[in-house]
Amino acid sequence: MSIPNITETLLNAKKNKGLSFADLEKILGRDEVWIASVFYRQASASDEEAKLLVEALGLEPIYIQELTGYPVKGLGPVVPTDPLIYRFYEIMQVYGFPLKEIIQEKFGDGIMSAIDFTLDVEKEADPKGDRVKITMSGKFLPYKKW
Amino acid sequence: MSIPNITETLLNAKKNKGLSFADLEKILGRDEVWIASVFYRQASASDEEAKLLVEALGLEPIYIQELTGYPVKGLGPVVPTDPLIYRFYEIMQVYGFPLKEIIQEKFGDGIMSAIDFTLDVEKEADPKGDRVKITMSGKFLPYKKW
Amino acid sequence: MSIPNITETLLNAKKNKGLSFADLEKILGRDEVWIASVFYRQASASDEEAKLLVEALGLEPIYIQELTGYPVKGLGPVVPTDPLIYRFYEIMQVYGFPLKEIIQEKFGDGIMSAIDFTLDVEKEADPKGDRVKITMSGKFLPYKKW
Amino acid sequence: MSIPNITETLLNAKKNKGLSFADLEKILGRDEVWIASVFYRQASASDEEAKLLVEALGLEPIYIQELTGYPVKGLGPVVPTDPLIYRFYEIMQVYGFPLKEIIQEKFGDGIMSAIDFTLDVEKEADPKGDRVKITMSGKFLPYKKW
Amino acid sequence: MSIPNITETLLNAKKNKGLSFADLEKILGRDEVWIASVFYRQASASDEEAKLLVEALGLEPIYIQELTGYPVKGLGPVVPTDPLIYRFYEIMQVYGFPLKEIIQEKFGDGIMSAIDFTLDVEKEADPKGDRVKITMSGKFLPYKKW
Amino acid sequence: MSIPNITETLLNAKKNKGLSFADLEKILGRDEVWIASVFYRQASASDEEAKLLVEALGLEPIYIQELTGYPVKGLGPVVPTDPLIYRFYEIMQVYGFPLKEIIQEKFGDGIMSAIDFTLDVEKEADPKGDRVKITMSGKFLPYKKW
Amino acid sequence: MSIPNITETLLNAKKNKGLSFADLEKILGRDEVWIASVFYRQASASDEEAKLLVEALGLEPIYIQELTGYPVKGLGPVVPTDPLIYRFYEIMQVYGFPLKEIIQEKFGDGIMSAIDFTLDVEKEADPKGDRVKITMSGKFLPYKKW
Amino acid sequence: MSIPNITETLLNAKKNKGLSFADLEKILGRDEVWIASVFYRQASASDEEAKLLVEALGLEPIYIQELTGYPVKGLGPVVPTDPLIYRFYEIMQVYGFPLKEIIQEKFGDGIMSAIDFTLDVEKEADPKGDRVKITMSGKFLPYKKW
Amino acid sequence: MSIPNITETLLNAKKNKGLSFADLEKILGRDEVWIASVFYRQASASDEEAKLLVEALGLEPIYIQELTGYPVKGLGPVVPTDPLIYRFYEIMQVYGFPLKEIIQEKFGDGIMSAIDFTLDVEKEADPKGDRVKITMSGKFLPYKKW
Amino acid sequence: MSIPNITETLLNAKKNKGLSFADLEKILGRDEVWIASVFYRQASASDEEAKLLVEALGLEPIYIQELTGYPVKGLGPVVPTDPLIYRFYEIMQVYGFPLKEIIQEKFGDGIMSAIDFTLDVEKEADPKGDRVKITMSGKFLPYKKW
Repeated sequence: MSIPNITETLLNAKKNKGLSFADLEKILGRDEVWIASVFYRQASASDEEAKLLVEALGLEPIYIQELTGYPVKGLGPVVPTDPLIYRFYEIMQVYGFPLKEIIQEKFGDGIMSAIDFTLDVEKEADPKGDRVKITMSGKFLPYKKW
Repeated sequence: MSIPNITETLLNAKKNKGLSFADLEKILGRDEVWIASVFYRQASASDEEAKLLVEALGLEPIYIQELTGYPVKGLGPVVPTDPLIYRFYEIMQVYGFPLKEIIQEKFGDGIMSAIDFTLDVEKEADPKGDRVKITMSGKFLPYKKW
Repeated sequence: MSIPNITETLLNAKKNKGLSFADLEKILGRDEVWIASVFYRQASASDEEAKLLVEALGLEPIYIQELTGYPVKGLGPVVPTDPLIYRFYEIMQVYGFPLKEIIQEKFGDGIMSAIDFTLDVEKEADPKGDRVKITMSGKFLPYKKW
Repeated sequence: MSIPNITETLLNAKKNKGLSFADLEKILGRDEVWIASVFYRQASASDEEAKLLVEALGLEPIYIQELTGYPVKGLGPVVPTDPLIYRFYEIMQVYGFPLKEIIQEKFGDGIMSAIDFTLDVEKEADPKGDRVKITMSGKFLPYKKW
Repeated sequence: MSIPNITETLLNAKKNKGLSFADLEKILGRDEVWIASVFYRQASASDEEAKLLVEALGLEPIYIQELTGYPVKGLGPVVPTDPLIYRFYEIMQVYGFPLKEIIQEKFGDGIMSAIDFTLDVEKEADPKGDRVKITMSGKFLPYKKW
Repeated sequence: MSIPNITETLLNAKKNKGLSFADLEKILGRDEVWIASVFYRQASASDEEAKLLVEALGLEPIYIQELTGYPVKGLGPVVPTDPLIYRFYEIMQVYGFPLKEIIQEKFGDGIMSAIDFTLDVEKEADPKGDRVKITMSGKFLPYKKW
Repeated sequence: MSIPNITETLLNAKKNKGLSFADLEKILGRDEVWIASVFYRQASASDEEAKLLVEALGLEPIYIQELTGYPVKGLGPVVPTDPLIYRFYEIMQVYGFPLKEIIQEKFGDGIMSAIDFTLDVEKEADPKGDRVKITMSGKFLPYKKW
Repeated sequence: MSIPNITETLLNAKKNKGLSFADLEKILGRDEVWIASVFYRQASASDEEAKLLVEALGLEPIYIQELTGYPVKGLGPVVPTDPLIYRFYEIMQVYGFPLKEIIQEKFGDGIMSAIDFTLDVEKEADPKGDRVKITMSGKFLPYKKW
Repeated sequence: MSIPNITETLLNAKKNKGLSFADLEKILGRDEVWIASVFYRQASASDEEAKLLVEALGLEPIYIQELTGYPVKGLGPVVPTDPLIYRFYEIMQVYGFPLKEIIQEKFGDGIMSAIDFTLDVEKEADPKGDRVKITMSGKFLPYKKW
Repeated sequence: MSIPNITETLLNAKKNKGLSFADLEKILGRDEVWIASVFYRQASASDEEAKLLVEALGLEPIYIQELTGYPVKGLGPVVPTDPLIYRFYEIMQVYGFPLKEIIQEKFGDGIMSAIDFTLDVEKEADPKGDRVKITMSGKFLPYKKW
């Protein structure tokens, strides 16, 4: 997988329009992380959402169709090399088993869904240095027995 | 890397004592996720914390020294096969670039620290099915120029 | 990951008792595939199920605790070398994209759950050679937008 | 391997014609999953089938030759990153050994063919959420001794 | 996967008995390559074959059960390092596509079965140096359409 | 490595001329498998052979030079995904050690050459289904001591 | 990841201008290693820095925007093949654990930041052969407990 | 490669003696990083050095022989998972090409030796947080032409 | 890494001029292996050498600059598939540890430099078949202690 | 593959006897590199050679049988981490294609055998630092056409 061509087009248009993802959040009524996922073709927009987005960015309607298709998901190498993205790999490597232990204790045998799932990013002001706050909320899915 | 021998000892002792990680949270005054990380030797306890933990679990003091050592971190294969842990890999694959986009827009060029970092798990009751809520808070570290 | 020690104990006990998985299906009231998953520690039994299983196999009650724990899942190498198991990898390689196309057309953007999921194996008599019939049923999970 | 250029041409033509794979199933007299496999060049059509398909999609006859060639099969990375396709990898990782156990008990030492093989997808309405039902039928091939 | 413990036991017993695989071929009425596959637990013997083999090697009957089990198949690393075995990997790398071309031209879209399959090794005397002659015979399996 | 551009040119020309590899075998006086290897640039033709081939296919003489060059050999991914080619990988995985055992017993410590090597494919009619017969003949090379 | 197109443009312009990185260090007031990182799009310049750089190299202002963007970082294969770069991989392989031991003894459980980090290269004259002196300075980040 | 057994013995003895690597530096007259490399069997001690070390740690002379042997070097997985060690991998990924550019500009085509090489770690007090200072000094080796 | 474009240009020019590497050895006063390394951009020529080479091959002076640049080195996949090149990988796999043993016994703990290094190829006539003689000469570099 | 247990036994016995490989060369009448290959179970000794070796090392005759068996060859990871052995990997990466070019020009399409092959190591005194001289001699094997 590599970054789709449309991503650069969208990011450039957004830069030229001087829009932030927070601005787009207001226009689309969707969270900025989800909108960034549409930019990278990791989420599919409805016709309505795609139209709003394309208009906001001043792009031709021709892009609407691509944004509403169901993309092949997953980007980048097996182990990411970008330091920002790698930190999430590291969290999975270091805290994966502890998280499994805690989630199982609270919920039983199952998983946190990455599909019925939301993801938010907030900036927390802190005198010792601002903090990135990430909130994930995924439906617990218990293993079905049959 | 493979799961350390001490992990099974600690988990069995905890089971026999009928203690939850939430119980240990009260005893140690540390978050349950962090305590689970100590169980898996992904975090190092102070002498005081190790002593409290070993006592609570009814284990011999001999384990204190190991729990205070600085462990080699990172567990499991390059791509995890356990479905619960894999979902965090999937989140990194699918949402890694969107997260990078949003964090950079809010903070500039840099990363969310995975060291000056906390991680919490909560159970959110939901009539459509309970949800796992995970909150990460990491200090933003801007790239230094020199 | 490697095959757990308990798996061989269970398989040998089953062989010595002359029991088939179909026999165990009747005893436990669970599907034989699910029971085989418990043997390989890919599924966790309830206390009741573990007790029934251990008794049926003539094993000591000491195994009950292990069978009710929540296992680390996923077995074998990244690409399986066993020809029977490899064929499922091949099906994923050859028919993965076509399946994605059909599922998305029928359901929209989302996945078939591998957690809220059942799996059955049947033997279909056929004059040209018996056939293996595998039926998977997984809940469709649409991508949540937020 | 990467997705062939012809795939996009076929998918776009299908979209423009407003045809579903179910529609094509009626036109070609072949299962929709098999037809999707032809789209992704994982199966080869007969001249007759290719002609029917190309006509239905309103494409030039020039594509017929490519669709009847015997393709190099297998798509995507060693471990798929797309969540929908990954779930089939996960099923193989988690249930591969249990499936091997059950198939061998029922049939003896051998495999389920992935060549003399059919694959169907159905939508099962369910009040708790629709389900994806996948049915595989492969000829059992016993290991030949010599 | 690694070489099973029983393999060394069998090979040592064979050495001590001064038997060649050709000798065992006469005793079991099976080809020597197939018998060597049983030694490496890549093929499963019938009770009768296992009994004959164990007796010929002067081993305890306790090994019969293991030899009749259905083994997990596939040995060695992803790319073999042993020069003799590597040459077969090299043949697949260099001649794989040409073989595909020829087999498809002669038979159509399908594969040579590696299950309904026999494998023979002969020594061909040659004044310029003896030659290894390997004969593979596998049933052609055409892709089923559905 | 990926399939060379010239391969498609040669295969298309062959198709347009309605020639089989067996036809080319008669024209060049070389085995069809070897000729297919030239098509995939895994073997180098002499000037004479290249000229005969290019003429038979009705191509410009410009291709002669490329066909006589010494190619970089080896095609496809580390583990092949095409089912037909994969079966040769599987044979190496499953029967590699047994083959090593038999060859060493017959010849001593050494290898079967993949260079001083021939490879033939025949179609064997069989009422239970035609069979692919592959014959490899490679010079035995004993390890030199020094 | 592969080397960005802009890198070659910048390196060629620098060559044509006859400038060394040390010259650019004086012009930008930034260390030459950091400037080389900007060339390879591993660091992002401010508008001011990008303008100075583009002017010094005699390039069009159009490149300024790209140089100020936040790049995807990390270049080259998993294990580098270039001998100069490999030596840093080798240092990590050979001295990684000793470094961990020493840093932990001096600082406690934590890491040396690769973000709040500087890197200098000096040439040390030495009669037995000049030496490369590399100085890294990274903020120590202690693991946060929570 | 995995961490040698002797490493744990040496680290435990050092802990029990209450010695730091800085203490050992004074006793052996060698840098603490080099001594830590001996602990991890990445460097070989002279008889004299091994004797001093074993005596200082209160261990039996039996360990001297092992410490003077020439070890197989390189520890840990292809991409390290321990966060402290990973940062050196990240530095190589992010700054490898810039370092190559600077070293080549200063020295010509060649490498920094990782053999004729020294490595020092210092603690730099800093009001904004202490810093880890690492100094590498490797002989420049120009590519020989012949 | 992939083979640079300039390599094909140089090889074609050499072919058209009817020059062997031995001819170029006489013209440049450098060994033919080194010159072939320049062709593949694994070694950098001086201005003088590049000029001589470009003239001998009848190419435009524009190529001189590229040939004098310091290339990124290392070609081909992690494990080579070309049989000729693979044999050097095999020699490293099979004889790597024995070579380490002998070199260390003769020289102590250290390495043979691959930088201060020469490589020659000779053809040795032999009635049983000509032999390839390869001579490597690399400076021994003892591990520095500090 | 990992280093066989017998290797350590042989190396320790050799150390205790105060023998060098050069001494063993005189005793066995075989080259020291070949003898080191026997130590690492990469070459098989004759009964006579094994007997001489075992006697010279003062070991029990029980080891003779193991040393005359035909070993599984190839040691260490896919990419070696030991710096001495890695340099041979690097030579293959950097000089593999140039060597292919030169060998093909001198000999035609074929390979240098790694089986009908000898390998010698010499110490060359040099005032600028002693040099390791490695001489490989392998029979040229031309590709057979058929």
